Amino acid sequence: MNFCFSDKIDGLKPSVIREILKFTSEPGMISFAAGNPAPEAFPIRAVEEITADILAKDPISALQYSVSEGYPRLREALREWIARRYSIGQPHDDLIIVSGAQQGIELSAKVLLNEGDTLLCENPSFIGSLNAFRSYHVHLEGVPMEEDGLNLEALERAARENPRTKLLYLIPNFQNPSGTTMSLEKRRAALEIAKKYNFIILEDNPYGDLRFEGETVPAIKSLDTEGRVIYCGSFSKILAPGLRVGYVCAHRDAISKITVAKQCSDVHTTILAQMICERFLSSYDIEGHIRRIQQIYKHKCGLMIGEIEKQFHPSVHITRPQGGLFLLATLPQGTDMMGFCQEAVRRHVAVVPGNAFNADESQPSSSFRLNFSTPTDQQIVEGIEILGRLTREMICE
Amino acid sequence: MNFCFSDKIDGLKPSVIREILKFTSEPGMISFAAGNPAPEAFPIRAVEEITADILAKDPISALQYSVSEGYPRLREALREWIARRYSIGQPHDDLIIVSGAQQGIELSAKVLLNEGDTLLCENPSFIGSLNAFRSYHVHLEGVPMEEDGLNLEALERAARENPRTKLLYLIPNFQNPSGTTMSLEKRRAALEIAKKYNFIILEDNPYGDLRFEGETVPAIKSLDTEGRVIYCGSFSKILAPGLRVGYVCAHRDAISKITVAKQCSDVHTTILAQMICERFLSSYDIEGHIRRIQQIYKHKCGLMIGEIEKQFHPSVHITRPQGGLFLLATLPQGTDMMGFCQEAVRRHVAVVPGNAFNADESQPSSSFRLNFSTPTDQQIVEGIEILGRLTREMICE
Repeated sequence: MNFCFSDKIDGLKPSVIREILKFTSEPGMISFAAGNPAPEAFPIRAVEEITADILAKDPISALQYSVSEGYPRLREALREWIARRYSIGQPHDDLIIVSGAQQGIELSAKVLLNEGDTLLCENPSFIGSLNAFRSYHVHLEGVPMEEDGLNLEALERAARENPRTKLLYLIPNFQNPSGTTMSLEKRRAALEIAKKYNFIILEDNPYGDLRFEGETVPAIKSLDTEGRVIYCGSFSKILAPGLRVGYVCAHRDAISKITVAKQCSDVHTTILAQMICERFLSSYDIEGHIRRIQQIYKHKCGLMIGEIEKQFHPSVHITRPQGGLFLLATLPQGTDMMGFCQEAVRRHVAVVPGNAFNADESQPSSSFRLNFSTPTDQQIVEGIEILGRLTREMICE
Repeated sequence: MNFCFSDKIDGLKPSVIREILKFTSEPGMISFAAGNPAPEAFPIRAVEEITADILAKDPISALQYSVSEGYPRLREALREWIARRYSIGQPHDDLIIVSGAQQGIELSAKVLLNEGDTLLCENPSFIGSLNAFRSYHVHLEGVPMEEDGLNLEALERAARENPRTKLLYLIPNFQNPSGTTMSLEKRRAALEIAKKYNFIILEDNPYGDLRFEGETVPAIKSLDTEGRVIYCGSFSKILAPGLRVGYVCAHRDAISKITVAKQCSDVHTTILAQMICERFLSSYDIEGHIRRIQQIYKHKCGLMIGEIEKQFHPSVHITRPQGGLFLLATLPQGTDMMGFCQEAVRRHVAVVPGNAFNADESQPSSSFRLNFSTPTDQQIVEGIEILGRLTREMICE
């Protein structure tokens, strides 16, 4: 049987990270390639208690069909949560529960983009989102990143040169893969450019609550008065990714279309998972839990950076995240990054090559991504030592 | 803010059923409009025990990220299950877990259909699937239904006249909305026509296990040796729809593309829900549970048909399902079906007008769908009495 797949999907490959992760199950492998929360960050006891209580008291609601918009009490709790924490929520806004922020991103792309339209994104950016955009056969235009976010001149040039630009995709906090945070000035400027060229901003904030240093920067959505920003949030990093619960807050007209698309996609998000999240938000010390996770990641990030400073060749540049799960290391020009990553895997340390995150994957990169949330302290020390030795071997003075 | 939505989504409306269901929450309303399993069919105690055990013994697996293909033990259990019950599974086949069969259908459409391609379907057919197809801007060509499935001449004509036909969508068992079952001869013939015109068959079997009368008819997938049939199954009707767990079994090349699309869509299906389904399949008397549900639905269907025979005007035709959740009633020519449905709602009985299920919704219909799984016995008796009186008032002798 020879299948003739759709144009939009035919060229789409599985994520490179996914392929790398296959190696990481080998015994003895130290993986800095994943993006998993630390297992010790899961509130296991709370989930156990909450789930038992839901199934004892309200089993039919947890098992029966539900509405596509999401569990009403969870929507209400989230409206209150994002208003309090992020000053998000205008009278014209609405909120839908989705199956992880990934679905929020995919459905936003589906309702807004025709094939051949342009989507602007940070370069590098999160491969899962880039693949979701690619799956609608759109043109991805990467805008170079600086330590404080997009290069604004490049953003405006890209908007000018791509008249079919419909969306700008941003991860303003502790970006994946770079770990950097967009400054308030750049957030304001990006919104102005979006107005000028009449495109929508898709703001993805999975890591926002994981700030372990520095001051919170306002969400772009909180600066937006006209409904130009679609905001995606998630329980994956603050509760548990396996539950697959995220949300989208946007102008009600956009949410209305996303709801229709969601109905076509999976009818609604697993209702038991939604009920667990609601109870976690409304009757559990979620603020205390988040502070605890922040301390775990602060410690791991600090440990990794400390070891890197001791072990890496000094010409390797690293970003210094104030939160999130990742940092990006960049080898000096002339070093073979792919060769570095391959040799690292041979020595049982997995990292993700930077070109995987490029809008155009064939574009070269001299960076690689390091995750500090998943490995243990011992793995961080051992793995960074191995990578450090490799940097010293491969980088010519 | 004026949004410019994608062509594929711009014209898509929420499901008519969904709109009708909004009325059904009014006090005193008897709803034959839903498609929910009977609440008494949920194995509540088993789900409670299984879930507690999973969260006590393997909480990290239930909460952490998982693979897009699905929980390996569930995939294994399902391969065995569909082989035993349906003789499905060729060496070239693979299986993926999806977030309800709805997602299997949506992803199959996404990986196979370009905008403007033709999809053939039974007319009438399940609105949730039709909307998923519409959300990819394809041409839906409805093929008239008979009591034993598609009209084969019309099917061949439609294939001949639509050279861009890529897919034929079928619900062979206890079809939604008609309740009828496709004969073995027609299943074989449809497969031959698919070969001749080189299109794929998407076989949707959510109700197959709910047979309460007559002999099982082999799945089309079990007749297919070359990998031309994509088969979708679900836990929604035998366990619980709120869990959102379904599966797709198809040629590995198709599953491979569906997996990439799934990764873009929601990364993976809620892993706790997958683990519950696996345990339900492998360590619970699922066959006994299914026999129990079959008896519930046999009783309810029999009760509804008995009441219809007593109450409806004799010129109303009804289908006589051997399983599933629905039957279709057809008013005699010249009766105003939409007027009938509207007046029924005014008298506090909700049914779904037949044109909602047409490939072209503007096409008239003289049918309406009745669901017998959700209402109580008393509601069936009372609701059918009200509808019966209305048929006698509206149908001119």
